Amino acid sequence: MAHATPLIALMTDFGTAGWYAACMKAVILTICPRVRLVDLTHEIPPQDVLAGAFALAAAAPWFPPKTVFACVVDPGVGTARPLIAAQADRQVFVGPDNGVFSLIFQRAKQLSLVRLTNPRYWLAEISATFHGRDIIAPVAAHLACGCPLQRLGVWRTRYHTLKLPPLQRTATTLQGCVLHTDPFGNLITNLPASVMSSAHWQVRYKHRPVRVVSSYAEGRSGQLVALVGSAGYLELAIPNGSAAKRYRAKRGDGVELCPISHDDEE
Amino acid sequence: MAHATPLIALMTDFGTAGWYAACMKAVILTICPRVRLVDLTHEIPPQDVLAGAFALAAAAPWFPPKTVFACVVDPGVGTARPLIAAQADRQVFVGPDNGVFSLIFQRAKQLSLVRLTNPRYWLAEISATFHGRDIIAPVAAHLACGCPLQRLGVWRTRYHTLKLPPLQRTATTLQGCVLHTDPFGNLITNLPASVMSSAHWQVRYKHRPVRVVSSYAEGRSGQLVALVGSAGYLELAIPNGSAAKRYRAKRGDGVELCPISHDDEE
Amino acid sequence: MAHATPLIALMTDFGTAGWYAACMKAVILTICPRVRLVDLTHEIPPQDVLAGAFALAAAAPWFPPKTVFACVVDPGVGTARPLIAAQADRQVFVGPDNGVFSLIFQRAKQLSLVRLTNPRYWLAEISATFHGRDIIAPVAAHLACGCPLQRLGVWRTRYHTLKLPPLQRTATTLQGCVLHTDPFGNLITNLPASVMSSAHWQVRYKHRPVRVVSSYAEGRSGQLVALVGSAGYLELAIPNGSAAKRYRAKRGDGVELCPISHDDEE
Repeated sequence: MAHATPLIALMTDFGTAGWYAACMKAVILTICPRVRLVDLTHEIPPQDVLAGAFALAAAAPWFPPKTVFACVVDPGVGTARPLIAAQADRQVFVGPDNGVFSLIFQRAKQLSLVRLTNPRYWLAEISATFHGRDIIAPVAAHLACGCPLQRLGVWRTRYHTLKLPPLQRTATTLQGCVLHTDPFGNLITNLPASVMSSAHWQVRYKHRPVRVVSSYAEGRSGQLVALVGSAGYLELAIPNGSAAKRYRAKRGDGVELCPISHDDEE
Repeated sequence: MAHATPLIALMTDFGTAGWYAACMKAVILTICPRVRLVDLTHEIPPQDVLAGAFALAAAAPWFPPKTVFACVVDPGVGTARPLIAAQADRQVFVGPDNGVFSLIFQRAKQLSLVRLTNPRYWLAEISATFHGRDIIAPVAAHLACGCPLQRLGVWRTRYHTLKLPPLQRTATTLQGCVLHTDPFGNLITNLPASVMSSAHWQVRYKHRPVRVVSSYAEGRSGQLVALVGSAGYLELAIPNGSAAKRYRAKRGDGVELCPISHDDEE
Repeated sequence: MAHATPLIALMTDFGTAGWYAACMKAVILTICPRVRLVDLTHEIPPQDVLAGAFALAAAAPWFPPKTVFACVVDPGVGTARPLIAAQADRQVFVGPDNGVFSLIFQRAKQLSLVRLTNPRYWLAEISATFHGRDIIAPVAAHLACGCPLQRLGVWRTRYHTLKLPPLQRTATTLQGCVLHTDPFGNLITNLPASVMSSAHWQVRYKHRPVRVVSSYAEGRSGQLVALVGSAGYLELAIPNGSAAKRYRAKRGDGVELCPISHDDEE
């Protein structure tokens, strides 16, 4: 059954000065005229799959069930990298299998995934350089209009996961690093939620302790805090400010976890 | 009765590089799937309430009756500053009570205003830093879907008005200043329409007389003119050009009114 | 008969920091509340008619039949330059007759064109500086809602064509130039498709031969290729890269065609 109000969210690295994002919308509206379109953002830094993955993981949970996310951050366009469509819990994702979806897929309770192989749901002519318009947009439109996943290609179980730098363990500490600065100046690290919940840790950044909170609601304006963010990783953030600017942060900056002894606690 | 085609216009200082505006839209579409969304702009300079107030006052009159404006220019997020919803004449406004609506409210013939106190119309969990998504977006969605204002909170009569620098009076002149340069290079002053209509004035800026017109239609391309703008204040503008660039204008620049004697006139 | 899902695409040079584009949408939604709005782009360089013409020619073919394109790149606003509406094949175009539509009109098989003269379909008050809001937006809205072209004004057959620099012929070569760098770094030239199909040519740029392909699909990532682009002119492009950056290209750069002798060929 078709949805009452199909919704497609677009995330790309095209920017808005050109007409690439508009072409995707044009193709979508040709196939599924009643769809609602929302721009998640078109300003993912060019070909920065990691940034795309974090943006998608942060925003997708706020969208309604059945939303179709059409994602084009695709350094491999024109190569043999697969394109995929997946239902992850109650939402649908279409784009390249290059890790941009892996944060979403990893936390999904239910995941069905196909590799796009059926050209019946693509444009008639496929360019070498703009699969966003020629394949991803029409597939997203067909999905939004109610086309079942299995018609689009062949089932698949594996998917590409983001390669993150490994954590460093010493006798007394666990050493992670800043992976990504988001557009709001929050610092996303490679320290996963599972590590954070495994023990009581003191978080240190730039040789100073950082207060750990369980939600932004606990943070105070202007104060650096550490919390598990929507992507499932430890983030350093200044509510209402930019941690990146304040600390001149950059990818690779060390973030250290030290176990809290009972003496230290409280 | 619900509207035939509910419409929400969004104005924020989030920019479009991140996903904050998209999260607001996601929340709105979850609650009110058939709403139309229009971006007024997301590029209000960060936390510049004055700029937001002028943008809103300029754009709102062109929107249809019943449009709901969801506005997030909110330096006070996380503090006790109230959030409000108001019907001003035939349109509806939701956001912080920090002056961003005061130009709209001052010129409204009818104004009904509530402080948002009923969490039934908010998201279940409220963060300390993103009331735009957690409170303003869902309240706007409920209003667009037909929820009456009085269910959202408690009636209120006062609202925060923009604090503008006072006018300086001398024996023979009235001295105002440039408050704000809009994105088109127009210079908005603190000289209200009421002063302009109280007498015949000569307007002087940077030691030169400026021609006063009653609408842009009287202006000529490239010529500096003065007129009462859509926000209800005297503006200096160059039709088809940027007064800000031409005169290297900045906030605080003096704008002088001298009474026109009968000898001067015509 | 009105369309099932009327669609208006907007292309302007307003940028998104101000509220001009939003005002056009507000006017459109007041007249035709059920229309779908798509931003083609608002970042055409200010008053760059050539850039607007190329963007429109590249994007329009991907939009559905009956799409109405409301275009405001209008250095002549406030002068006597005519505004027009046209049906070109199965799509509709509204804007100034300054060449912004000429690439579209030139390739159309069927073209009907009126000069906008009937103020019944405009806003009640017309400013001297914002015809996009006062005339183009309301006319686009009426067209999208099913108003026939002939009600809007008087039939016309001529239209303004883009003035392009002439080609230079020597004894053995044909010399064109780069007209425009698009936002993706592709270089659009003044060499029309008709020239390209008239003989076998070798293309030379910056003293080097460039491989001629018939579609991007033949290009390889990172390799400069020449092809007839969507605007009907020879373009130099690097699939997945920026020819403009790689070659520090600028408007006026020479692009040379030399006939291929039988000895040279394959």
